[in-house]
Amino acid sequence: MSTVVRNIRRADPAVVAVMEEHGVATVHEAQGRKGLLASYMRPIYRPARIAGSAVTCSVAPGDNWMIHVAVEQCRPGDVLVVAPTSPCEDGYFGDLLATSLQARGVKGLIIDAGVRDVADLTQMQFPVWSKAIFAQGTVKETVGDVNLPLICAGTLINPGDVVVADDDGVCVVRREEAEGVARKAAERVANEAEKRARLAAGELGLDIYAMRQRLADKGLTWVDEV
Amino acid sequence: MSTVVRNIRRADPAVVAVMEEHGVATVHEAQGRKGLLASYMRPIYRPARIAGSAVTCSVAPGDNWMIHVAVEQCRPGDVLVVAPTSPCEDGYFGDLLATSLQARGVKGLIIDAGVRDVADLTQMQFPVWSKAIFAQGTVKETVGDVNLPLICAGTLINPGDVVVADDDGVCVVRREEAEGVARKAAERVANEAEKRARLAAGELGLDIYAMRQRLADKGLTWVDEV
Amino acid sequence: MSTVVRNIRRADPAVVAVMEEHGVATVHEAQGRKGLLASYMRPIYRPARIAGSAVTCSVAPGDNWMIHVAVEQCRPGDVLVVAPTSPCEDGYFGDLLATSLQARGVKGLIIDAGVRDVADLTQMQFPVWSKAIFAQGTVKETVGDVNLPLICAGTLINPGDVVVADDDGVCVVRREEAEGVARKAAERVANEAEKRARLAAGELGLDIYAMRQRLADKGLTWVDEV
Amino acid sequence: MSTVVRNIRRADPAVVAVMEEHGVATVHEAQGRKGLLASYMRPIYRPARIAGSAVTCSVAPGDNWMIHVAVEQCRPGDVLVVAPTSPCEDGYFGDLLATSLQARGVKGLIIDAGVRDVADLTQMQFPVWSKAIFAQGTVKETVGDVNLPLICAGTLINPGDVVVADDDGVCVVRREEAEGVARKAAERVANEAEKRARLAAGELGLDIYAMRQRLADKGLTWVDEV
Amino acid sequence: MSTVVRNIRRADPAVVAVMEEHGVATVHEAQGRKGLLASYMRPIYRPARIAGSAVTCSVAPGDNWMIHVAVEQCRPGDVLVVAPTSPCEDGYFGDLLATSLQARGVKGLIIDAGVRDVADLTQMQFPVWSKAIFAQGTVKETVGDVNLPLICAGTLINPGDVVVADDDGVCVVRREEAEGVARKAAERVANEAEKRARLAAGELGLDIYAMRQRLADKGLTWVDEV
Amino acid sequence: MSTVVRNIRRADPAVVAVMEEHGVATVHEAQGRKGLLASYMRPIYRPARIAGSAVTCSVAPGDNWMIHVAVEQCRPGDVLVVAPTSPCEDGYFGDLLATSLQARGVKGLIIDAGVRDVADLTQMQFPVWSKAIFAQGTVKETVGDVNLPLICAGTLINPGDVVVADDDGVCVVRREEAEGVARKAAERVANEAEKRARLAAGELGLDIYAMRQRLADKGLTWVDEV
Repeated sequence: MSTVVRNIRRADPAVVAVMEEHGVATVHEAQGRKGLLASYMRPIYRPARIAGSAVTCSVAPGDNWMIHVAVEQCRPGDVLVVAPTSPCEDGYFGDLLATSLQARGVKGLIIDAGVRDVADLTQMQFPVWSKAIFAQGTVKETVGDVNLPLICAGTLINPGDVVVADDDGVCVVRREEAEGVARKAAERVANEAEKRARLAAGELGLDIYAMRQRLADKGLTWVDEV
Repeated sequence: MSTVVRNIRRADPAVVAVMEEHGVATVHEAQGRKGLLASYMRPIYRPARIAGSAVTCSVAPGDNWMIHVAVEQCRPGDVLVVAPTSPCEDGYFGDLLATSLQARGVKGLIIDAGVRDVADLTQMQFPVWSKAIFAQGTVKETVGDVNLPLICAGTLINPGDVVVADDDGVCVVRREEAEGVARKAAERVANEAEKRARLAAGELGLDIYAMRQRLADKGLTWVDEV
Repeated sequence: MSTVVRNIRRADPAVVAVMEEHGVATVHEAQGRKGLLASYMRPIYRPARIAGSAVTCSVAPGDNWMIHVAVEQCRPGDVLVVAPTSPCEDGYFGDLLATSLQARGVKGLIIDAGVRDVADLTQMQFPVWSKAIFAQGTVKETVGDVNLPLICAGTLINPGDVVVADDDGVCVVRREEAEGVARKAAERVANEAEKRARLAAGELGLDIYAMRQRLADKGLTWVDEV
Repeated sequence: MSTVVRNIRRADPAVVAVMEEHGVATVHEAQGRKGLLASYMRPIYRPARIAGSAVTCSVAPGDNWMIHVAVEQCRPGDVLVVAPTSPCEDGYFGDLLATSLQARGVKGLIIDAGVRDVADLTQMQFPVWSKAIFAQGTVKETVGDVNLPLICAGTLINPGDVVVADDDGVCVVRREEAEGVARKAAERVANEAEKRARLAAGELGLDIYAMRQRLADKGLTWVDEV
Repeated sequence: MSTVVRNIRRADPAVVAVMEEHGVATVHEAQGRKGLLASYMRPIYRPARIAGSAVTCSVAPGDNWMIHVAVEQCRPGDVLVVAPTSPCEDGYFGDLLATSLQARGVKGLIIDAGVRDVADLTQMQFPVWSKAIFAQGTVKETVGDVNLPLICAGTLINPGDVVVADDDGVCVVRREEAEGVARKAAERVANEAEKRARLAAGELGLDIYAMRQRLADKGLTWVDEV
Repeated sequence: MSTVVRNIRRADPAVVAVMEEHGVATVHEAQGRKGLLASYMRPIYRPARIAGSAVTCSVAPGDNWMIHVAVEQCRPGDVLVVAPTSPCEDGYFGDLLATSLQARGVKGLIIDAGVRDVADLTQMQFPVWSKAIFAQGTVKETVGDVNLPLICAGTLINPGDVVVADDDGVCVVRREEAEGVARKAAERVANEAEKRARLAAGELGLDIYAMRQRLADKGLTWVDEV
């Protein structure tokens, strides 16, 4: 009953490029503060920033067989997303699999489990966001699914959704919503540039955002230290 | 019932400079092994080392409004200290707030919660010690207090106390005790320099500290492997 | 009843050198996926890679006295392995002890507890794998054992066993098995080089490892997205 | 942009009753080892066992306003499922809300956050599965959604799905698959009864399941202690 | 430099009795949602509910000597509060110390560390709220302080403050604020009784608290499932 | 290369009976404060207290096959000890396996992983100490070892060692040391009975143990609150 879905629809590369440029925090705000993976998902080196269409892969605990199957479904610009069917921190992925993915143009790996060979991966500049770094090896006994929706680090990811990852973590955007979110992200960045200049010049957020009256209405008072 | 205290007393800048020079482990020892924040408080980049007078700020879970209020109370050489009223790892702080604090001469942020835009903060060289890195955004609905004593990462911090932070973590020194602690820290460092030279030359701590008799008194025995 | 065992047998330096060259993930696989310490044991800086004969040291919680005792038993090429008798994250070890160990030719420290002065240790290039970074100081009141077998981060380590540590974590190899494991590690690396070249050229692991039939036998099916 | 969906489709009460009778471990196996919530979801008292149709409710961190909204959408036999939009352990729920839910015939609460008044809830026999027990109060400032799909403790739950909860944890079954899963669960239980009798009589699983040959094929050998 | 403060001021027993009657969640709300200890502080048996004046005691990691010292400072109606100077889960306290405290009329123990002999303590009905249950023994080598302010499980506790503990956790009320908080707690309970009756009769919180308009103002909309 | 060792030597039943009578904390003290498993090992119901000879069993992550193999090696009075080869919280064990073990006279299970069917196990009064309660099922694909030494929850356990478990946790005693430890445990209990009576009568530990002078020597001073 295990299935590999081929030829999934991907997101528009131009939209993906905008997301990659703006990064996780901006994209997350632009789509209404949703879509983040759990904060324990950390990059193995920094700085790193990617965006791409998700190829999803479910694996059994301690068994990385399906990652080999998923590689074949990856295309240039994709991001591989791997989640175990029960929690596991074993090192499912190392430099050989990374070599294979890099040869196919894959931009990086998101894995709700462990990774190893991180010194090699760093040197190869193949970025990985993972729950753990752990040399513990895996077996090849159990099949799973490729390109079915899955939950990774607490968040639902569909194949073909846009995954954005950087030093702040990982965010997913539905493929159908990606264009709108990219547009809002770009607007947000433009708006922030002006704010940043005013703040750098010493103006206060209290004034720029006109917060003083609303704070007073909520009961905030200022006193001098005695 | 929320309060902002203005014009708090700060520590003597000369005393703060001594603490910054010597760092957390030395200051912590010099004041009798107390004042450390929990070990989960980690710098977002390394190396980093600062000391400054604390401006304290309590925030609601998932709500960073009061940080905007606290910015106005910060002066050059201060360190902003933020603690939520119940545990939260949301990303309360990013590059815009850092721009504003840096414009005011603030040396860094200590936050018992999450931070985001860490790639930007690293590039700006604005150091942050936090419980988490997490892109999760916050709202602006609830008021709190600025410059009242608070508990941050398990330790009491009063406004105006000296906060020292480096790659080993974060330590607080009461403002009234700061001068004495700085003096002891300097003495300790002088004393260690001589020890370091002897250890580097191959002398043993067992001999330098005359530990052999006391160890034997406690029942320690040496045997050869058979 | 506390004991220091002197003149323990060490592993063959040539064998240790092979392990250091190949690193943790390879050695762990070569000895049948065993011997790893828990994944919470992380290096204080990266990249770092060492191998050496273990000098073991048990310490009381919050008490680093026995580390001073253990230093005397260390020889060039050794790795010091420290474990507390009940869980503790205090900073047992800093730059003075590192100076002393480095003067004796010790390659690094594995400690199932905390470490401090990590900025200095990084500058000295003295690598440490630890459970925590924490400035919390320790006392010198209680004796323990040096060079008796101990459990460190969930794994049994005998004095003289080979400890291999790198960015992926820490692995121990029994002294008596070290030669055979080193040989298998070297074979494994040779075999991987050829695989890596084929993968880099775009060949699939599915084909290199002839997995397709076995996957189909397990019930895996491929379908196109509709 | 917050929405409450009314009049959701529920699962067939007869099917739900079968699930409640057989419990989480059996239902989880019957549907192919999927659908479990994270193991940190624990009942506030034991024994407890319920099943019902899910009414889903997303809440802001530290804000329980939407639970009041969700109550109105609950009907007899439902199970309320609450998840915060970012991780939070505050005590969102206590005896007043439980009184209200119990008055409406709701069977229990699943909440990926904290609960309080647990002594009262125990006395009322209103079961709750939660991530934490924590008296920390919440506010009523932010709206969310009721009866949209959500992720609770790492698992996707749709409104109207069957939620089964007992001392082993919590499992969700898709509404459309519930009838088939209930049938398989009943078959499984019937099959286990016969096995249980043979095992209680001293027969070995090795023989009942005919495992010896397959174990030997995998390389297992038996030796006597020397 | 270690100190035992004798003859501390205690809270009014009548005020303490009111707090004990109403419990942690109510007291915590009555004083404005502050004063809670961390949620990891759990009772060793349930149900349990106490309130009393705090006798505070700091201990070294793995060293319970000062608890023996603190016993002498305890009076009938007190609650002993123990915190280690760095995090530790050792079993500092067992049935002998409980016998001694019970003989002095102490109502229970709050300890930010481990406890053991919990079967005996349960049988004796001596309640303990702790971070861990762990048989690991401690030594008697290091002195600390009794009846100085300390941080316990993330919260400041002064000697003589009122500590309230029940199945929901632990809360502290400043001695000077105790009377006012007790009065508000009683009012809150009276007010809740009426609410509870209306909710039990099937009335909705949405109506009792007149929330519908405010929810609509925030943008909440109701739709039927299609 | 997987092995089952048959006919291991067990501990003397009379010695085991003494340990079971006195429990974990006493046995742990009697053997010099060693041998405890990690504090996360908790009983699924309380009170529970057992002691017996260990039958050890290593399992792959997510794979409980070897438990079926281990059952055959168990005899009346044994305790089954199971540890995974990498960390895993899956529910390896449920009521069918418990039925089989109970039929063979096994006293309980110690498992550094998850367990399920805990309501049934409680009703059967088959005690289990585990790292987690989790309904997640396992497969039967990978072989391991029975009755070889293993590390369970951070502690080395040899087949035939005495395992003692109660509400305080789990402790292991080497088979060869068991008689001596049991004797010391009995002495300790006799000694404590007299102490308990004196403490219950109101005498202070400070006086019974003659601690006052030693405390003063360490620098402790008593002052009255001003």
